[in-house]
Amino acid sequence: MPEQPTGHIVIVGAGFGGLRAARALAGKPVRVTLIDRNNFHLFQPLLYQVATAGIAPDEIAYPVRAILRRQKNLTFRMAEVQRVDRHGRRLITDQGEIPYDALILAVGSQSNFFGLDSVARNALGLKSLQDAETIRNHLLCMFEAALQETDEAACQALLTFVVAGGGPSGVETAGAVAELTRMLLKSDYRELKAGVRVILLEGTRRILNHLDPELSARAEQALTEKGVEVRLGAFVEGFDGSRVFLKDAQPIPAHTLIWAAGVRSAEVVDSLGGLQGSQNRVRVNPDLSLPDDPRVFVIGDAAYLENGGGTPLPMVAPVAMQQGTLAAENALARLSGAETAAFVYRDPGSLATIGRNQAVAQIGRLKFHGFLAWAVWLVVHLMQLVGFRNRLVVLINWAWDYLFYERAVRLITPER
Amino acid sequence: MPEQPTGHIVIVGAGFGGLRAARALAGKPVRVTLIDRNNFHLFQPLLYQVATAGIAPDEIAYPVRAILRRQKNLTFRMAEVQRVDRHGRRLITDQGEIPYDALILAVGSQSNFFGLDSVARNALGLKSLQDAETIRNHLLCMFEAALQETDEAACQALLTFVVAGGGPSGVETAGAVAELTRMLLKSDYRELKAGVRVILLEGTRRILNHLDPELSARAEQALTEKGVEVRLGAFVEGFDGSRVFLKDAQPIPAHTLIWAAGVRSAEVVDSLGGLQGSQNRVRVNPDLSLPDDPRVFVIGDAAYLENGGGTPLPMVAPVAMQQGTLAAENALARLSGAETAAFVYRDPGSLATIGRNQAVAQIGRLKFHGFLAWAVWLVVHLMQLVGFRNRLVVLINWAWDYLFYERAVRLITPER
Repeated sequence: MPEQPTGHIVIVGAGFGGLRAARALAGKPVRVTLIDRNNFHLFQPLLYQVATAGIAPDEIAYPVRAILRRQKNLTFRMAEVQRVDRHGRRLITDQGEIPYDALILAVGSQSNFFGLDSVARNALGLKSLQDAETIRNHLLCMFEAALQETDEAACQALLTFVVAGGGPSGVETAGAVAELTRMLLKSDYRELKAGVRVILLEGTRRILNHLDPELSARAEQALTEKGVEVRLGAFVEGFDGSRVFLKDAQPIPAHTLIWAAGVRSAEVVDSLGGLQGSQNRVRVNPDLSLPDDPRVFVIGDAAYLENGGGTPLPMVAPVAMQQGTLAAENALARLSGAETAAFVYRDPGSLATIGRNQAVAQIGRLKFHGFLAWAVWLVVHLMQLVGFRNRLVVLINWAWDYLFYERAVRLITPER
Repeated sequence: MPEQPTGHIVIVGAGFGGLRAARALAGKPVRVTLIDRNNFHLFQPLLYQVATAGIAPDEIAYPVRAILRRQKNLTFRMAEVQRVDRHGRRLITDQGEIPYDALILAVGSQSNFFGLDSVARNALGLKSLQDAETIRNHLLCMFEAALQETDEAACQALLTFVVAGGGPSGVETAGAVAELTRMLLKSDYRELKAGVRVILLEGTRRILNHLDPELSARAEQALTEKGVEVRLGAFVEGFDGSRVFLKDAQPIPAHTLIWAAGVRSAEVVDSLGGLQGSQNRVRVNPDLSLPDDPRVFVIGDAAYLENGGGTPLPMVAPVAMQQGTLAAENALARLSGAETAAFVYRDPGSLATIGRNQAVAQIGRLKFHGFLAWAVWLVVHLMQLVGFRNRLVVLINWAWDYLFYERAVRLITPER
């Protein structure tokens, strides 16, 4: 019979995966430390709504201490992990060292610019709360600048918004940018003569290529109806802040490039020295531990695990959450000398929204689109939002937005 | 009979005074340009609530374009005025030059550190939205840092919060800081052994010295009950980031000094080259125009006008709003060659809140305090908040806060 587990489990990252792992350890006979560089959990699926002035930043950020207040065996530390010292079984952070008996890395992903320096320098990523606020400020500043611009072509370049990447994040962002900018032209910036262009660039032959081709076609049609120019087979090669350079095509004069074309696992995992799969994700055993270190588990976007047939598990919240629970159980098992279990993914289906009343959904063999898919998307996301207060306020804001076509948060907030 | 006014009236500042002036010109036969460095109107009376994590920044900021959308003769420009060229009748801004036929300067006030360089460098002002967010982040970071601190005295210094200035703004802030920090100790930071100290420093012999002495005493008592140490006759001489230096007293070990001890008119008015009264406010004629320039009006915090008996009008929203309306009418009169009118202040009374259910009020000869004053304060401020959406969301947040003693916005937002 295995012993009672004792010891110290450290979880890095308070995203979907890390929070689930923390909760799975509630009431267990271990000490738990959760670390994040921010003091809040970020509800990433709605980040694009902050970027497009639909909702306010605090509506998708919730203090970790408030979420886990009742968990007696847990300590939260706001710190940035600099590297993992597996030999010494400790983390090196900007707030000092933190030793562990077992470690769960749920550090997520960051933008991947594939070595395109000019893009990394000038494009706008959409991975953090400050990214989203930066995009919102930038979009609105482009309109303010366009008012001062007398040259027609220069004005058009200010009002051309390019989104790179036709995955769910790029599609959602392009749809929301189109809605925001059309509203702005109608209401706040009626003086502007130039029209707005929103361009979505996708490298492959269809957008949302993880879904059924029929849904890709529906999504493309819905975007087009919203005024988004969808360009397939388009590869970004550079961006100097005023022109987006493409492979085998004319550059696009534009001052805005939102980058949703690639992510990689958060850089801190590079310090593990383990084997890395595509997108720098760390290869893990089926039980989510490192092949050469049974005390270290990696989950979610940061982990590479194949889902049968050689396809890696997608970088989505359901994978992270399910792995969070299992990693917690496996870490406990490891400390007590018990057997660990292998990860089995239960796919809840995919949803991608394209705007105020348009989405596409694929759940098992079921495919649907339009208002119904959007309603499902809305309910799923509202249910998931952490904390009743956020849920209520977000709901009121959305309802307001939906009924009155009003974007309330179009603030340009100065840098602090 | 005077002619129809024609021409271009420029208003600088979208605060309480500037907005009123803009609205008073709706439908009049003039072209109006409103300029502000931000694209939003800031509801300053609730700024301290953002600083103490009670409400979110967007709840007190409302886009100017949304407020004035229906005003056909008005253009808004987001620009920072660098100086006024009265000779050339134009403004020099960071977005180019803007000529005017008549000018209304409603530029407000900024923190005044009275030449105390170390205070200017290290203390936290509370005049802008970014100031408020900076204070909120700082307060929460002090708690995070205290968790990592093993030395008892050093920990106490991290948890000592000093507010300088016993006027309405300092009193409100000290009360709210005491409530926030007490709540944080009870809930999110129960590990902390050290207690919190909140100290309010006032240079004169009583706080809220613009009110009746009885109300000052009531307010002092209410603050003391909330755990605020009120120190009268205390003058700040310096602050090095870890010690607040006082005249004729021991320094206070503290990492936080919130500065509510002095304001001056916004610096841009210095470029007018006019006579300036106390707090660098610009001396104006009874009709609010400059003594040597009938086309330039100055209102609100930026203007110096005595209210009979040699006392200057206070730097409060009602003065700015009433002057905004009159300045607009007088600017119109000037353009048409008609007579201008003199400003007469109708004092609506004073309110200062001390916390969740405590305030003091003086309306004419009526004085009251406690929950009733707080309820009046709440209603007055909710009624004034621009825009229904803000009003509703702020109300929900407040109700939530009040019922559940929860501060929902305790986010530490990273710098962008």
